[in-house]
Amino acid sequence: MLSSSITRRAFSSAIKTITPLTSKKHPHLKRGPYKKVDAQDINVFKKLLPEQQQVVTEDTDVYNLDFFNLYRGSSNKFNQIRSFDATSGIVVVDAGVILQNLDQHLEPHGYTVPLDLGAKGSCQIGGNVSTNAGGLRLMRFGNLHGNVLGLEVVLPDGTILNSLATPLRKDNTGYDLKQLFIGAEGTLGIVTGVALLTPKKARATNVAMVAVDSFEHIQQAYASARDELSEILSAFEFWDHDSVQLVQKTMLSDQIYPLNSSSSPYYALLETQGSREDHDMQKLESYLEKNMTNGVIQDGVLAQDASQVNALWQWREKIPEAITRSGTAMTYDVAMDIRLFPRMVQDVKTKFPPGKSQYSNILGFGHIGDGNLHIMANMEGFDQHGQEAFDDYIFKWAIEHQGSISAEHGIGIHKVDYMTQCKNPVQLALMRKIKANFDKHSIMNPYKVIPENNGV
Amino acid sequence: MLSSSITRRAFSSAIKTITPLTSKKHPHLKRGPYKKVDAQDINVFKKLLPEQQQVVTEDTDVYNLDFFNLYRGSSNKFNQIRSFDATSGIVVVDAGVILQNLDQHLEPHGYTVPLDLGAKGSCQIGGNVSTNAGGLRLMRFGNLHGNVLGLEVVLPDGTILNSLATPLRKDNTGYDLKQLFIGAEGTLGIVTGVALLTPKKARATNVAMVAVDSFEHIQQAYASARDELSEILSAFEFWDHDSVQLVQKTMLSDQIYPLNSSSSPYYALLETQGSREDHDMQKLESYLEKNMTNGVIQDGVLAQDASQVNALWQWREKIPEAITRSGTAMTYDVAMDIRLFPRMVQDVKTKFPPGKSQYSNILGFGHIGDGNLHIMANMEGFDQHGQEAFDDYIFKWAIEHQGSISAEHGIGIHKVDYMTQCKNPVQLALMRKIKANFDKHSIMNPYKVIPENNGV
Repeated sequence: MLSSSITRRAFSSAIKTITPLTSKKHPHLKRGPYKKVDAQDINVFKKLLPEQQQVVTEDTDVYNLDFFNLYRGSSNKFNQIRSFDATSGIVVVDAGVILQNLDQHLEPHGYTVPLDLGAKGSCQIGGNVSTNAGGLRLMRFGNLHGNVLGLEVVLPDGTILNSLATPLRKDNTGYDLKQLFIGAEGTLGIVTGVALLTPKKARATNVAMVAVDSFEHIQQAYASARDELSEILSAFEFWDHDSVQLVQKTMLSDQIYPLNSSSSPYYALLETQGSREDHDMQKLESYLEKNMTNGVIQDGVLAQDASQVNALWQWREKIPEAITRSGTAMTYDVAMDIRLFPRMVQDVKTKFPPGKSQYSNILGFGHIGDGNLHIMANMEGFDQHGQEAFDDYIFKWAIEHQGSISAEHGIGIHKVDYMTQCKNPVQLALMRKIKANFDKHSIMNPYKVIPENNGV
Repeated sequence: MLSSSITRRAFSSAIKTITPLTSKKHPHLKRGPYKKVDAQDINVFKKLLPEQQQVVTEDTDVYNLDFFNLYRGSSNKFNQIRSFDATSGIVVVDAGVILQNLDQHLEPHGYTVPLDLGAKGSCQIGGNVSTNAGGLRLMRFGNLHGNVLGLEVVLPDGTILNSLATPLRKDNTGYDLKQLFIGAEGTLGIVTGVALLTPKKARATNVAMVAVDSFEHIQQAYASARDELSEILSAFEFWDHDSVQLVQKTMLSDQIYPLNSSSSPYYALLETQGSREDHDMQKLESYLEKNMTNGVIQDGVLAQDASQVNALWQWREKIPEAITRSGTAMTYDVAMDIRLFPRMVQDVKTKFPPGKSQYSNILGFGHIGDGNLHIMANMEGFDQHGQEAFDDYIFKWAIEHQGSISAEHGIGIHKVDYMTQCKNPVQLALMRKIKANFDKHSIMNPYKVIPENNGV
């Protein structure tokens, strides 16, 4: 029933139009007196880095466009795995190593990376650290604040802060400086090297996809999974009916939805990772039987081999790409009490009726296990005001409901104006103090993350 | 065979002599111009905190002595559980809540605390956070940098930094300020409230104790446990022959060592926590059979019920108390490549021959899964120079072997003079910068963690 021809997590970069430079998109920014990079500067770097091709000045677009084709900046060579210790599982890498390449390097040693993103094939570990990326298996492995054991960071004055020499599982000697750079989005320094604790790769991976008739049943299915699957549960993802429709139409039109009905309001994907296939299957089958008997789950399918695992995952993983292929993408990443998820999506649809406004394909999906909802939508053409209105509604909704406007994507330039609403004055003052203390000339990723102090 | 009468982790505080005040023990400290607390100050606090008994001025010893009877300072009422959400597992507590009390509060909801220490019955969550405590199950739950979701901290100027209002599993909005206070040992602010992500309590706990004939076999037994027990492995502890002898003599003289022989050089305790007793037992039995057949494990015993689980654990957990009962305790907490553990213990014994010097009972034990070795020893009487010589040898040995002088106990005043040797100048400069930036009058836990700047 399931096709096996799809490569998992291999997003194609089907970018058709070139996004304007961020400087054009955000003309209101009061830009500082920064120097433009000229030939003389490039020569300095060429002397500092004499080896062939270390200074790249052409064909840099691939390093400057974000996945959603929303941001384009104006430069990666840091792609070496420096060391790996197969006893401790500690790996030290350049910041430019692509997550999937690192995973492939670890695999023969029986280890895996402790984070897994849809963008695995193109994202780099330095970016993952700088944005504190979460991804699909955060509920299993925890976040990067726990898994990063050391960083090499170039500070604003050119000094290199290096804690990679002796990465250890435990080290309580003074302030844990590296933590400040995890999720700081490059505003305090540039991460150039990372020491990561990697977990053992599980021997068995099993995946089930289920349909439920209400969001309450998603919650019940999740609570039951935590009890019944417990230590082997590695992901619990959900998506709504509209997500299925769009993925089917734009990405997987040659495939049959693996469940009998594609008209249920919600679906979930459960993944288990464990050391014994037979035990894991018993747990998963008993979970499914129990929850189908008591009416929590309406329909379910269990992958029988690795290709079916991939085939099931793609119905979740293709959602962001389906959105980018369907028009101008607007993508949101909020965190809150999971009981609020359906209300938020419904409120957004009521405010901006899909098809009856300039907006369409308003989708809700995400990581139930982390309380992390992704809302994505398309907009006709590109209308700055249209985006801002949508942003404003979503960010304010999240803030009013004790949620976060950024569970994992970060603040960047997109959400910086909302920081004064989602952080209290003490938090803002302390962030500004740290920023000023580390980067007195504001040369590190300016205008991002920390809002200008206008007395707020 | 196993006694069931021992209460697990209930260290008695058998303190016989009163340790001198730290001001007497460290007379060389150049003390700053700090004001002494007088009756007028106490009246200010009594007005600020008018409710009965919030200001404690008598019988404060219990708050001022450390477990090892090594440090005595000159004061706890913050012991309320503020909220618990049984859907997300997020709990918000006062800093003075005792870890075991929190665990008991969570238990009826099916949750547990994500850290477990020998001192569980007396240590407080604020102290755990301020020292980034690790403990017995760090390999399962990860460290506090990953599990703390929010803090309430009183900053040096009296401002309250509060991120407890909306604790979320994921929140990437600006700098993760709380991280700075985790493990800062109170030098940047005082933690008064904590939001913690708690995991589900496992349904089944199984424990095996094994004897091996070499440290290489400890390593092999650990590597095999990571493969065979994988997701259910919750602790892998080891101790040496001398540890058994001392625990038997001082603490458990009425009990028979649970293994046939108590003369093996090393022992290990493996704990599994999972959702199905039958699966876990199958995994553990197959692990033991495999490793006994191939000669890695010489002898093993598997607890058959909860009381036997406790009885096995005490052979590991009583070690620190056995040391404190046997004379002046010296306790070390280093992290390094686990392959170095036996060499370090042997080198220490060669340098300071037990029984032939003022030192005795030099024990090696700890958390194999975390690369964390505890060395503990006794000294006759209390001899400052004797302790300093022992300290110096151990700290330098760890530093020379790319290890950490503090895996989890922190720096405090004990190791502050070694910070210049174990941190590079960039790290030290940044720590000093942060300290000065947060606490310009140096009123937060002065003389601790960050060494004075003497141009080093």
